[in-house]
This record gives sequence, C-alpha cells and structure tokens, in this order.
Amino acid sequence: MQATELLTVSEEIITEMPCCIKSDVPLVHRKNNTDKTLINVRGTIIGGDKIIVMAGPCAVESMDQIMATADAVKKEGAAFLRGGAYKPRTSPYSFQGLGIQGLKILAEGRKRCGLPIVTEVVDPQLVDVVSSYADILQVGARNMQNFALLKAVGKCKKPVLLKRGLMSTIQEFLNAAEYILSEGNPNVILCERGIRTFETATRNTLDISAIPILKQQTHLPVFVDPSHATGVRELIIPVSRAAIAAGADGIIVEVHPNPGQALSDGPQSLDLQEFSNFMHSLRPIVFAMDRTL
Amino acid sequence: MQATELLTVSEEIITEMPCCIKSDVPLVHRKNNTDKTLINVRGTIIGGDKIIVMAGPCAVESMDQIMATADAVKKEGAAFLRGGAYKPRTSPYSFQGLGIQGLKILAEGRKRCGLPIVTEVVDPQLVDVVSSYADILQVGARNMQNFALLKAVGKCKKPVLLKRGLMSTIQEFLNAAEYILSEGNPNVILCERGIRTFETATRNTLDISAIPILKQQTHLPVFVDPSHATGVRELIIPVSRAAIAAGADGIIVEVHPNPGQALSDGPQSLDLQEFSNFMHSLRPIVFAMDRTL
Amino acid sequence: MQATELLTVSEEIITEMPCCIKSDVPLVHRKNNTDKTLINVRGTIIGGDKIIVMAGPCAVESMDQIMATADAVKKEGAAFLRGGAYKPRTSPYSFQGLGIQGLKILAEGRKRCGLPIVTEVVDPQLVDVVSSYADILQVGARNMQNFALLKAVGKCKKPVLLKRGLMSTIQEFLNAAEYILSEGNPNVILCERGIRTFETATRNTLDISAIPILKQQTHLPVFVDPSHATGVRELIIPVSRAAIAAGADGIIVEVHPNPGQALSDGPQSLDLQEFSNFMHSLRPIVFAMDRTL
Amino acid sequence: MQATELLTVSEEIITEMPCCIKSDVPLVHRKNNTDKTLINVRGTIIGGDKIIVMAGPCAVESMDQIMATADAVKKEGAAFLRGGAYKPRTSPYSFQGLGIQGLKILAEGRKRCGLPIVTEVVDPQLVDVVSSYADILQVGARNMQNFALLKAVGKCKKPVLLKRGLMSTIQEFLNAAEYILSEGNPNVILCERGIRTFETATRNTLDISAIPILKQQTHLPVFVDPSHATGVRELIIPVSRAAIAAGADGIIVEVHPNPGQALSDGPQSLDLQEFSNFMHSLRPIVFAMDRTL
Repeated sequence: MQATELLTVSEEIITEMPCCIKSDVPLVHRKNNTDKTLINVRGTIIGGDKIIVMAGPCAVESMDQIMATADAVKKEGAAFLRGGAYKPRTSPYSFQGLGIQGLKILAEGRKRCGLPIVTEVVDPQLVDVVSSYADILQVGARNMQNFALLKAVGKCKKPVLLKRGLMSTIQEFLNAAEYILSEGNPNVILCERGIRTFETATRNTLDISAIPILKQQTHLPVFVDPSHATGVRELIIPVSRAAIAAGADGIIVEVHPNPGQALSDGPQSLDLQEFSNFMHSLRPIVFAMDRTL
Repeated sequence: MQATELLTVSEEIITEMPCCIKSDVPLVHRKNNTDKTLINVRGTIIGGDKIIVMAGPCAVESMDQIMATADAVKKEGAAFLRGGAYKPRTSPYSFQGLGIQGLKILAEGRKRCGLPIVTEVVDPQLVDVVSSYADILQVGARNMQNFALLKAVGKCKKPVLLKRGLMSTIQEFLNAAEYILSEGNPNVILCERGIRTFETATRNTLDISAIPILKQQTHLPVFVDPSHATGVRELIIPVSRAAIAAGADGIIVEVHPNPGQALSDGPQSLDLQEFSNFMHSLRPIVFAMDRTL
Repeated sequence: MQATELLTVSEEIITEMPCCIKSDVPLVHRKNNTDKTLINVRGTIIGGDKIIVMAGPCAVESMDQIMATADAVKKEGAAFLRGGAYKPRTSPYSFQGLGIQGLKILAEGRKRCGLPIVTEVVDPQLVDVVSSYADILQVGARNMQNFALLKAVGKCKKPVLLKRGLMSTIQEFLNAAEYILSEGNPNVILCERGIRTFETATRNTLDISAIPILKQQTHLPVFVDPSHATGVRELIIPVSRAAIAAGADGIIVEVHPNPGQALSDGPQSLDLQEFSNFMHSLRPIVFAMDRTL
Repeated sequence: MQATELLTVSEEIITEMPCCIKSDVPLVHRKNNTDKTLINVRGTIIGGDKIIVMAGPCAVESMDQIMATADAVKKEGAAFLRGGAYKPRTSPYSFQGLGIQGLKILAEGRKRCGLPIVTEVVDPQLVDVVSSYADILQVGARNMQNFALLKAVGKCKKPVLLKRGLMSTIQEFLNAAEYILSEGNPNVILCERGIRTFETATRNTLDISAIPILKQQTHLPVFVDPSHATGVRELIIPVSRAAIAAGADGIIVEVHPNPGQALSDGPQSLDLQEFSNFMHSLRPIVFAMDRTL
C-alpha cells in the first residue's frame, strides 16, 4: 500500500534528481594546457598574468579600522579588500562578527578606496544578503564540505573563493568546487590555506605541492592564504614568495592597522608597514615567474 | 557621519549579542562524578546504565529496505532505528538521499517496529522539517563546525547526536556541543567516529582515548560509530567491544539487509545475520562493565 | 675496465644477497584461524589464553626502585618486569639510562622476584650484551625502521618486543617484523603504542583497530602500551580494558614506586597502588574475553 | 650489599655522563642575524650565497649508471654527486644496495667528474667505512632518531646531511642535530624531505614553513629534498622553486639516466634531460633571491 506507493515515488525522485546527472568529465577538470578560467571582477582579472593580492583584517571591527586598512592596502597595490562580517568561531562565546553592519562597513571601504571586496558567508540563508554587498563570496575551510552552502553559492552569480578544509584531500577539494560549478556558477577560486598535521610550530602546514597539482588538474585560479597556513607573522613573507614560485595566482593575507588590538587572529596579521614590506618582497619573485603584481 | 553612526551601532551589537555572554564554566563541563545527562526518548534512557544500540542503513533507499531492517534490529535488541534521508556526499554526482520521502519511510519504520528514529540534518533550513519526523537529529562529521547548523539545532527541542569532525580536536568537539547547549538545547549525544590520520588500513582512526576523556570532562552521553571509524565490516565487533570497555554509552552502527546492493557504505555495513552476531558479541563486555543491553 | 669489472661483481652481489630471496608468502602472515605463535619465556607462554602484563619503570634508576617495583608487580600478577637501561631520548642532554649497570640491576630484580625481564636495545653493537641479561629484547618506536638493528635482533635467539613507529602504517610494521623473522628469529611480539596525529589531548593516538587487523593478518602475539599511547595516567585503565576487549594478548605498562620523582615519563606512570587497581580493573574484561590473567 | 653498591655506582654514572652536561643554549641555536655555519667540502661552500644542488640516483646500481649520471649532472651545474650504497628499505626483500661496491663506484664517479659525493650511512658500525669514501654522510629520515647512529656520525669528522623524520617535529629535528653537534661535529646540513600526513596525492607533504623556521632558529644550512617530499616527477620543478624562494640553501634531487629501469624510486627521478630543464628553471628564482647557482 503506502509502502509501495512511497517506494515508487522515491525511485522517480532518484531518477530525476539533477545532481545525479553525472557529467562524463568533471567540470573542474582542465582540458588542455591553455585552458584556464579568468574571472573579471569590476575590471580586475583573476587567474591571468597578474598576481592578485587580497588584503584586510580577519574580522571587520569598525569603520575606522576598515578605512585605515583600505587606504593602506590600496596604496601598496592590493587588488581586493577582504574582511569578515560573519565569523565562524570555535567557541560560541568568541566574537562572531558584526553581521550586516560589517557588510555595510565593507561597502563603505569599497566606496572609499575603489577595491572590490571579499567576505565570508557561513549560512545558505545569508547568501542573498552577503552577495548583495560582496564582490566575491568566501566559503571557509570549516565549511568546505557544507554541501548545502556549496549548492547555495553555486546558484548565486557572484564568484566564490573556496578554502580547502583543514583535513581535506585535494580530491575532496576539487569535488567541493564541482558542487559549485554543477549548480551553474563557473567562477570559483581555490585557496590552499594549510592542512592539519602533527607539527605544532605552525598553526597548520601549508601544502605547497597542492598548488602545482591543482594547476595541473583544474582550470580554476589557485590562491594561497599564508596567514592561516602559518599563524605566524614572521613566516608570511617567505611562505608567500614560495607560493608564487610554485605557481599560485594570488595571495589572501590578513592586514590590520593594529594587530595587537585585533578581535581575532592578531598574531598572524601584518600591520600596515609590514604589509608594505610584504608587497615589496614579492616583486622579485613575481617578475622571475614572468608575472605582474 | 555615516561611518561614526555605523560604528556606534556595531558596538551596541557586540555588547548585546547573546552568544557573546560567556558563562564562567562551559555548559558542557561535568561538575562532579555523578553529574550526567540522561536523555529520555519515548521512554528509552540514553546515558544511563543501558548501552544503547542505534542500527540501520547509511541511506534510506526504499520502504522494503527500512521495513526489513526495522524488524531485524528491533528483534536483536537495538534501541533506535537509524537511516539517512539527506546524505552529505563528497561528490555532487553521488546519491544525495531521498529527502522528505526518506523521512516518511523512516516514520513508517518507527510505526512498524516501535523504535524511535535518528536521522541526519544537513541544512539549517531543513531543521524544522527533519525534526517533525525524527526523534533525534544527527549532525554529521563534516558539519561539526557548521556553526549556522549548530545554532539551528540548538534552538530545536529534539535531542542531537553530534559527530566529531574528521579533523577536530576533542576541545573543538566540546566547543561545538557548547554551541548547541548555549542556544538552549541540553540534550546532546557526542559521537566519536574516527579521525583522519596517515593510516590507510582503515577509513579513519578510531580515537579510543576520546571516550574516557569525554566521559571525564562532560556530563553528556558518549557514543561510538564503528562503521565510519573503520570502514571495514570485519572490524566492527572488536572495535565496538573496545568502545564499551572504554566506557562508551552507546553504539551507532550501519546495518543493511543486502550490503552488496547498498547505495552507500556497503563495505562497512553489517547484514542482518552479522548484526545478530554483533549484538551477541557485545553482551559479555556489557556485563563485565556492569551495564545492560 | 675497472667499471666493467665492478659492474660484474655488483651484479653477483645482488643475485647472492640472501635478503633478496623473497619468500612467496611473508613469514609474518597468518595461514589459518588457528595459526598462532606461542612464545615460551622461562615457562610463561606469550600469545596463549593468558593475558600477559609487563610492568615496571620507563627507566631503571636505582636498585631500590627496581626492587620495590619488582615485589609489587609480582604480587599483583604481572608476568614480566620491564625497565629501560638504554633510553632513546629526544634531547642529548636528557638522562640516557644507566647502561650496563641498569642491566645488572634488572637481573637482580629478576633474581628477587622471579619475573623474566624486558629491556630495550638501541644499537646493533649492544645486542650481545643486552641479550646476555634480558629475557626479551625491546625495539622501540623510534627504531622500528632501524633496519640494522632489526637485522641484529633477528640474528639473536631472544624474543623481541617490537614497537610500532609513531608514524608507521600497519603494513610497514609487519614489514619491520618480517626483517626479524627473515633473519631466523621467529619470536616477535608486536606492540601498538599509539601513532602521531593532530590531537594534543593525548601524547599519541592509540590505534585500537590495529589490534584486530594485526590479529587477522599475522600469527604473532599483539600487545598494547597504554602508557606511551596516552601519556596520561588517568587513561591507562579504560584504554587497557579496551585493548583487551579488542583482542590484545598483553599489556606493557609503566609503573614507578614514586612517579613524581621519575627521571622520565612520570606523568604517565602508575604508582604501586594504582597498579593494583589497574590489575583488578582488567579482570572482568579478561574473563569476558574467555581469557586468564 | 650489592644493591647499595650498584646504586652508588649508578649515581656516579649519571653525574659523569658527558651527554648529561647540558649547555645553557643548544649548540644548534642561531645567536644573531649573521650567525651561519659555512661548510667547505673540497672547496665548495655549503650555506653561503651559492645554492647547492646535489644530484644522482636513489641507489647506486652500476658503474655505467654512475658515470652517465656524474657527467650529466656536473655539466648542468650540480655541486655534488649523490647515490645510495646502503639502502634502508621497507621490506627485507627489496634491493638493499650494493654496499661497499657501491661506495667504490661512487668514488670512481667522483674521480671522473670531480664532484664530491654524498651517501647514506645506516649503521653505527659502518660509519668508518662509509666516511672513508664519502665527502658527506647522509642520515636518512627513518634514522633521524637512531641516536646510536647520530652519536657515531657526531664523532666522525665528515659533514652530515641529516634528513628530517617523517614523523618528527621541527623541535625534534633540531634536537637530533644537537646530538651530532654535542659529540663534536659542527658540520650538519638539515634537510626537509616531507612529513607524513593524510594527503595521498603526494608521497609526503613538504613542510615549506620549516625552511624559514629553521633558518630563523639555527645557523645550520637548510636543504630540501623534493623527490622524497613529493614522489612525483612533475612536481619537482615547482616545489624546488618554492623551496629556494622560501630561503633554502640547497636541493638534493634524484636523477637517473633511465628512471623506468631504476631499482628504486623511479617514478620520482628526473632523467638527464629533465635535470637540465630543472637547473634552468631554478635560475630566475635563484637570482630573484640574490643568490647564485
């Protein structure tokens, strides 16, 4: 009776489910040597010759903080302003971000300095509101296999910066990107940000080999986040130079006007002078790689 | 002007955000030796003397499958029927579950065998519909730090089975549970299901020490999932016996009437005869631990 | 000329090297369900029905320490006295063990309590002297792939307790044992002692699944070292019970008359009263497994 | 009686043991920005401005193989010839190296091309014979905590290339080097060669951050082994460029005239043309770092 009825229905459902229509070749796969996705965000091309630097604080804390950061990173050559309005925090009692007020502050920062903005979305229900402010949506490491969120950003038209999970294989990372592409959004930037290992000298272990592996397997741009990968300010320059030498298309880095006062991630944030040094330090490697900054 | 205005607003927001009101002692912490949470689900007590076995297929596939499983696991002494209606899968092209039809089938299974049901919720927007069918909501390993989902199940009144993330420390696991408790839901069951390591002989590495550590630190019941921890059918009995000897309050195990035909996790599923053997094999250890089954 | 000459010679060498004669089936492999190696040490059988407990301090520190320990562990039912005379320490400035004086003290302990002794050998050149005192030679985790040492103990006639490396797979562990067997020594005891993972709540992560996997794949006895696996005194009882429930043939545990004064591994050592509690706590599980203690 | 006597003796032993005399500051620690160890090997300086490339096969297989390799790597600018005469292999049935014949072949290679030679020593008893042929002694990853071997090479006068263990923290790596320095040998080269993680796309995971951390903490030269770190030929160029950009002083890389026929490590070895490409690919990065090749 009812059982049989339901069974029939469910079989139809399986057959009709669009996400069960497997493409022969995954959408993320690179077809040939020249196959690469270029993403145009307000005139800035991601995935081309220019190394893209995205800079800004871990968390949006105030208008003053964002204005000071926006001016400085723009002046030094950053291409994007980053900052978190919704923060996924290990403890429920840690600062969770300013939410929509944070988005508004970021939009003011963009108006001031002209840089497009990148910010994280943590909930499928917030994709609409975040994408109404942001130029690029970030999906964080802890949400790399939050498939409901991946599907939601896949239905959105804004580009997505997808961070690798702390303990996700490269194959799983590509599958997570495939979720987004399979929903119709082709503009995904992959970001290696360190994996979890036994080593405690750094917050995570940057998987430098992931960069050339991803460049060989997919046409999507590949970025590196040296701030979360190392958790140590002094390592950001050498690790970023290494990332570019390994073939990365961009760097997303934490910059704060006053790291000692940061509400999160202070020890791994560059101050404004350090960010200037950082940009200068990258140039010789960028040029050695026949790229621009 | 606007900047100053926004800044003022945002400061108020920080002050007023309820999740920023840190309790002096985390809600999950055990206060003394006798402090333990007992969860009553339709008359069955979780966290007491009785070792609770939750059994059923990885994915709900059909009414026949659930009916066959429900009868068999009830007969052998399982206390709950488990099955996934919404499946978080690594690839977007893998079977994603029957969705609401799966929930309806599970409810039929409960009606048939009388066992309360446990099923996974993967999206904050689905918490209402899943909790209208399920007796216990499962939050899977990949969503352990999906904080939007944790908050949503924290606002729900149904008990939550929270699985440890593949990459999560015990401290992060407890913090994830704290998210749920801090939203007002005290009924959380912690489930160790293996962590990711370099060893490839098993799907994951069961962290057996996590059981006594959790029992010492928290008053919440602690379960083990030997199916995902090992990924190997032949290891389920010895690993489950070990879990009970280490102090676990329950086991959640994959059972399928025909593992060779399962749409997911076949190689780690017990068939109905193996489940019978499994239950018999636990008894001597359960009694040696002065508990019941 | 000379090149050709040498080439010829070297080809002969390859052909004649005895360790290049691969047996069709590795010597460590279990042939059938009843195939198991029993090791008789001064009348005590390892690998049979009786669960063997080896107890004593990490390092031999003095005659008084060993005498106090020997009396106590014998009284409580330990079958072997353990203690390190040569200590592999991370830092060259840490206490390196008493060397031959430590061996002599252990031999006095054996004379006093009648228990055979287990002690570590760290250098192929010391195998002769250590085996002239010890009843069982231990090869430590850091030396699991010290192939020169494995070959040396393989040529020796004393049984070998081989510890799994901190980051060695089960397959590599069996290959290390194969080195010993292939040199002519069939009496190897495998000891799981925790692997290195990202979790910091314990010193290492005990791989409980390794026990049934090893029991299925090899005829050699399988032990567990809960002291090094956890590094935490409070976890030794639950973890040891779990190990026995998973099928282990024995436990090697650190016991010290005064852990607060121990020259190494104090925080993970049981005192004499705790060792008594430990032995009592194992009994119900041992009997539930149809074994003896 | 005897107990008391022994106790007294042992206490003296502790006091007098030279390796228990802890220096206030470890010998490996860098005192200031300009503090660096330069190692002169037959006129070639390691640890200075010049990036040192050591190249050759995993295993010495024949005179022809070494002669062909020596000529080619010398021509392309390698500074050292490497090759293994004693091979630590996971299985006792794998090719274990040519032993002393291999050392003789390497010495012929040095005579032919003029490059100094690097080869591994696996047993304290072989340090004398290996150092009578080799210019630099290599201690492999599996022996990084073979303390008997570390002490033996510490007493030797030849420089030591010490590889980081698969499972070793940076702190343990520095402690292993300290064992060598504390025995009187100041000429140690540290070599990062990948650590073991959950990722299976590469043989190991190169810990790129270890390079700047080691450069900041110690005055010793820091090398990278891209062959063992990745296990994949196609990754050797990008990973080596990254290593130099991160501050490495040298690269040790596997080169074989015919990788398809190699007795070990074929898939990660460069052929002679690929080695030529490799050397050319490094130049722009080397110059961008203000160094020479």
